[in-house]
Amino acid sequence: MTTAPEPTTSPASLTITVDGERRTVGAGTTAADLYREDRAVVVARVGGVLRDLTHELADGDVVERVLISDPEGLEVLRHSAAHVMAQAVQQLHEEAKLGIGPYIIDGFYFDFDVAQPFTPEDLKAIEKRMQKIVNSTQSFRRRAVDEAEARAEMADEPYKLELIGLAQGPGSGGDVDAAAEGASVEVAAGELTIYDNVDRRTGETVWKDLCRGPHLPDTKLIGNGFALTRSAAAYWRGSEKNQQLQRIYGTAWPTKEELTAYKERLAEAERRDHRRLGAELDLFSFPDELGSGLPVFHPKGGIIKREMEDYVRDRHVDEGFQYVGTPHISKDGLFHTSGHLPYYAETMFPPLHVDEERDEDGTVTKPGQDYRLKAMNCPMHNLIYRSRGRSYRDLPLRLFEFGHVYRYEKSGVVHGLTRVRGFAQDDSHSYVTREDAPAEIRHLLEFILGLLRDFGLTDFYLELSTRDPESEKFIGSDEQWEEATRVLEEVCTETGLDLVPDPGGAAYYGPKVSVQAKDAIGRTWQMSTIQYDFNQPERFDLEYQAADGTRQRPVMIHSAKFGSIERFLGVLVEHYAGAFPAWLAPVQVRAIPVAEAFDDYLREVVASLRARGIRAELDAGSDRFPKKIRTAAKDKVPFVLIAGGEDAEAGAVSFRFRDGSQDNGVLVGEAVERIVAHVRGRVNEDPTAPARREDAAAAAGAGQ
Amino acid sequence: MTTAPEPTTSPASLTITVDGERRTVGAGTTAADLYREDRAVVVARVGGVLRDLTHELADGDVVERVLISDPEGLEVLRHSAAHVMAQAVQQLHEEAKLGIGPYIIDGFYFDFDVAQPFTPEDLKAIEKRMQKIVNSTQSFRRRAVDEAEARAEMADEPYKLELIGLAQGPGSGGDVDAAAEGASVEVAAGELTIYDNVDRRTGETVWKDLCRGPHLPDTKLIGNGFALTRSAAAYWRGSEKNQQLQRIYGTAWPTKEELTAYKERLAEAERRDHRRLGAELDLFSFPDELGSGLPVFHPKGGIIKREMEDYVRDRHVDEGFQYVGTPHISKDGLFHTSGHLPYYAETMFPPLHVDEERDEDGTVTKPGQDYRLKAMNCPMHNLIYRSRGRSYRDLPLRLFEFGHVYRYEKSGVVHGLTRVRGFAQDDSHSYVTREDAPAEIRHLLEFILGLLRDFGLTDFYLELSTRDPESEKFIGSDEQWEEATRVLEEVCTETGLDLVPDPGGAAYYGPKVSVQAKDAIGRTWQMSTIQYDFNQPERFDLEYQAADGTRQRPVMIHSAKFGSIERFLGVLVEHYAGAFPAWLAPVQVRAIPVAEAFDDYLREVVASLRARGIRAELDAGSDRFPKKIRTAAKDKVPFVLIAGGEDAEAGAVSFRFRDGSQDNGVLVGEAVERIVAHVRGRVNEDPTAPARREDAAAAAGAGQ
Repeated sequence: MTTAPEPTTSPASLTITVDGERRTVGAGTTAADLYREDRAVVVARVGGVLRDLTHELADGDVVERVLISDPEGLEVLRHSAAHVMAQAVQQLHEEAKLGIGPYIIDGFYFDFDVAQPFTPEDLKAIEKRMQKIVNSTQSFRRRAVDEAEARAEMADEPYKLELIGLAQGPGSGGDVDAAAEGASVEVAAGELTIYDNVDRRTGETVWKDLCRGPHLPDTKLIGNGFALTRSAAAYWRGSEKNQQLQRIYGTAWPTKEELTAYKERLAEAERRDHRRLGAELDLFSFPDELGSGLPVFHPKGGIIKREMEDYVRDRHVDEGFQYVGTPHISKDGLFHTSGHLPYYAETMFPPLHVDEERDEDGTVTKPGQDYRLKAMNCPMHNLIYRSRGRSYRDLPLRLFEFGHVYRYEKSGVVHGLTRVRGFAQDDSHSYVTREDAPAEIRHLLEFILGLLRDFGLTDFYLELSTRDPESEKFIGSDEQWEEATRVLEEVCTETGLDLVPDPGGAAYYGPKVSVQAKDAIGRTWQMSTIQYDFNQPERFDLEYQAADGTRQRPVMIHSAKFGSIERFLGVLVEHYAGAFPAWLAPVQVRAIPVAEAFDDYLREVVASLRARGIRAELDAGSDRFPKKIRTAAKDKVPFVLIAGGEDAEAGAVSFRFRDGSQDNGVLVGEAVERIVAHVRGRVNEDPTAPARREDAAAAAGAGQ
Repeated sequence: MTTAPEPTTSPASLTITVDGERRTVGAGTTAADLYREDRAVVVARVGGVLRDLTHELADGDVVERVLISDPEGLEVLRHSAAHVMAQAVQQLHEEAKLGIGPYIIDGFYFDFDVAQPFTPEDLKAIEKRMQKIVNSTQSFRRRAVDEAEARAEMADEPYKLELIGLAQGPGSGGDVDAAAEGASVEVAAGELTIYDNVDRRTGETVWKDLCRGPHLPDTKLIGNGFALTRSAAAYWRGSEKNQQLQRIYGTAWPTKEELTAYKERLAEAERRDHRRLGAELDLFSFPDELGSGLPVFHPKGGIIKREMEDYVRDRHVDEGFQYVGTPHISKDGLFHTSGHLPYYAETMFPPLHVDEERDEDGTVTKPGQDYRLKAMNCPMHNLIYRSRGRSYRDLPLRLFEFGHVYRYEKSGVVHGLTRVRGFAQDDSHSYVTREDAPAEIRHLLEFILGLLRDFGLTDFYLELSTRDPESEKFIGSDEQWEEATRVLEEVCTETGLDLVPDPGGAAYYGPKVSVQAKDAIGRTWQMSTIQYDFNQPERFDLEYQAADGTRQRPVMIHSAKFGSIERFLGVLVEHYAGAFPAWLAPVQVRAIPVAEAFDDYLREVVASLRARGIRAELDAGSDRFPKKIRTAAKDKVPFVLIAGGEDAEAGAVSFRFRDGSQDNGVLVGEAVERIVAHVRGRVNEDPTAPARREDAAAAAGAGQ
């Protein structure tokens, strides 16, 4: 056996790994030198840390390219665009003082202390000036500075001076607001850097900012794929006690085409916004009188919610779940037993203090008791499990409920139906033996994916949330976590779906799988979750008698299929852009006579549809025919049935579908059957005719 | 024309009306003189006030007899029995000091300050002594006394002295506890009376009590239809801050036979107690961990609740109601708008104070907001009404919801499912024009009676709750109250049902009809309510556009059909003694093989029943056949299907019903159809065979 020779490197050369390949380069080599031929490489990941291309490499470095189109490349592009915007603002508004300017999802913002809010005209002028700066090709140059230098260079920027103080203080690392936006862009703990914008032709520094970076090599890469979108007031560091600043939001993309596509996506999302459609279609509202995040379902929204709930409940019963019912409040001791308190106190509404008794002097004669609005159902289901002795023969015991829970979301983050303070969880808990846990998780995952498909969502990936071993939040032994995580991972892998890790995202009691579903315009929504819990059975002392007579601890598996019925309804409104499949539509059929003379004819058609359980109505209003057709289109009614003289003579009706296509002269009996089959079959596609007719009939048959 | 002559009465004669008949009697005549021939007359109503028979009549008095068997006669009997019990106690326990001793429903109690709680042996001895006193024929004699006399005579009775002080004080009129029990027996405001028990033979006063009366003429009338039932601790005047007394409860009836019948009714009610059956049948529980009055529905109870809710919801939809959904909490301003606050603050849970913000020093920077758990749904339905413009064409608008409300019942009055702190109201609000109100009330009343009949309740009367014109609780003009009351009264009269007045029992916003239903053992339960409300539409500024284009105020009609689903479920458990009709039963069919060899045969039968939506299960356990039959009887399963060799050969099964009757050798196909028809027909009677078979089939046909 021979010993491998030590790698010999002269002081003038470095051995580095570049995109997985080992290379030897001269000392002083920068990332820019490695990627000189490829302008699309805008930063590099060196030893896992994002660096400017000007970063000088060291021996042993592992270097990876980051393209402008990569997620992190886009973030750098947007951060650099924010610098260009700030430069433009200070050119046009000399008095403007800089706040912070991070990248955010799909864009960036920068805060300014200015005397007047920015007008739309200001934004146009700033955008124009930005383009000029971009075209002038300024380089971004990083400089490490000490605190005294930083203070001297930023002497005119009071907010930056405050950040310097924070960065040097204890527990530093960026400010509150920036952290909340997922980007701590200004300062890193213990290190201060300034980025200069350097004019390529003159070599002169034309603008600079206190900033962690990294940045694009130069402004030219920003191209013309950016735009300013709006301005708004924002408090310095997110606190109402601080100075109010003016924030300008922008977006930036590698190309003009991508910017255009983004704007189209935005417009499409705006058209589908469930809050707007919810009001237009009279589905639900959020009355100020009730409070933030508390939706009210109007009759039409009530129909959709009921259809969803009934179907979901029936499917649960089919899958062996048993429907139970628990109250919305409980003594807080229950949540201490479960471990949700004190950990999750912030997420729960404050306590209700009841049953206290006082005498006339106000002296407490009976101390009373704190109750809580429940934020989760599991502790109550555990009480049902525990209400009698259980045997292995009773397992899996699957308890299911539409549990109405209340979570104390900050009123600022509440959003339509997708982030509310009160919602109905389609929540289940499967109590199983440890050996049966994998089978039950498989059962749940298959059930969930089937259920989502039933509602027209077909494009998924999975996320596996595990514990952070450093955090004290997670309880239980290493072995328990390892077993639970392994079980979840195995079952996920079997599905063949993409599995994305989410370290640290688990619940305190065990790891979690979540199903992420893509909607019709490609947005991802976190829907269902499956959680493996070995903790609560212990805390509630849950037991079963095993076949050998010993007393054993079950595992409990939490699962919410849609997470929240309200949120899922909001997602469906956007997914279908309000044009619900017929089985969910509040009005399934509207009959419109060509003239009043055909009212009675269609009234009979409507009656025979109603007798079959179809939500059909006759538009016998005083509007003229074309107006009625437009109203039905606005109401997104899936089946419009028209009748005039020809139809009535033939005993027929004409279908008009939401895409404007028609199917004329369909005999009434056939029309009724076609509609009934489509609705009962829970077909999720539009019933456009006549191509889809066979599919619908086939699906109807399969669904029965 | 002549003037009618003045009636001439000499000072020695009185003209009175006796049981509707005018009579002239001598001065000094007592009620006893009028009814001397009838021992069953025990007191008299004189000018509307109950009086001892010894009461001396005055000119013009209107006198009515009260029999011992009349409701008020029974109360007097029980009150007199309480006196006899107190006398017996003080004979046997000389140190015993008297508290109060009122009649209550079906009986009486008396409180005593004694050193030791009473033992069962004490109660037996007291009962025996009571019989001796009864048999000795003591008269009850009433004496008016002034405060000094009362104090002198009651010098040894400290609690009576306290009552004398209260009676003479401001706002007097009996004590708190007695008022709570519906009887203020000791003292009337401003008048003090003592009742002596006088030995008939000796003419000696053997016992006396401070008391308002009235009483029986003598103890003999108490006969032997009384019994002491139990003893318990009770605080003086119901307050934990006061001395603890010992209370003895008793019951008294005109005859021994009636006492026996009462005891049998009690035993039957105990057998039907829904709390006991709920635990035995594994339907629901009241976990201590949750708190008082908060039921949890187990899987089997969940099935019944779901069947009830689904059916009730479908019936509402059939009747033109629209299903809506509202949250469980709201800013408290909503309840101030509706007028529930501050009036009903005691009935609501205390406020949840949220959204308050404080700085590091604890100074409030944002004042926050009080939220309330809702105790009623109407204000939220008003918001839905108001969410858009309404036209007369939209009316009646009928909104319906299973609204989960929370009422802060004192933990002492909470009782099983019939008095809870959280429950689901099957609550509807019909918004109608004033003209259409009578038609809508008629519609609601018919709907309600039909719905109760669907659940097997068929014996009703109505109660009409009106305002107390003296009370400030009731808002609205005299004209509004008169119109609303007249409308309700007319509709009630049309039904032909008995109508009982309930003056002062209305809601603050309008009068109310309630439906009182009798259960299988003759107990009356207040179920449904219909309330006419002209107030909230004004407070919420609800409007509609009338046909003539003017803006008008609708009337809203509140209606809860079962009041609370939880309570109704409790009533049904007792009504059916846990033997639910098949359509509601958690397990509808249990198949029991005569031996293991027939497991597979019955498994197929079970599968074909399940395929038809029947909740069927096979008892394939290790118990022997007779044990399985007993278990099914204990579980009150409506259809037990048995199969042995003969059945299997013939392709048949044998039915065994809950009454123990059998129907053997029924072909499987026929058995399945029979069960399906019975369940779908929602037949409320037991499916005993074969006599009822045709009825069930007929009902099934009618229900489809």
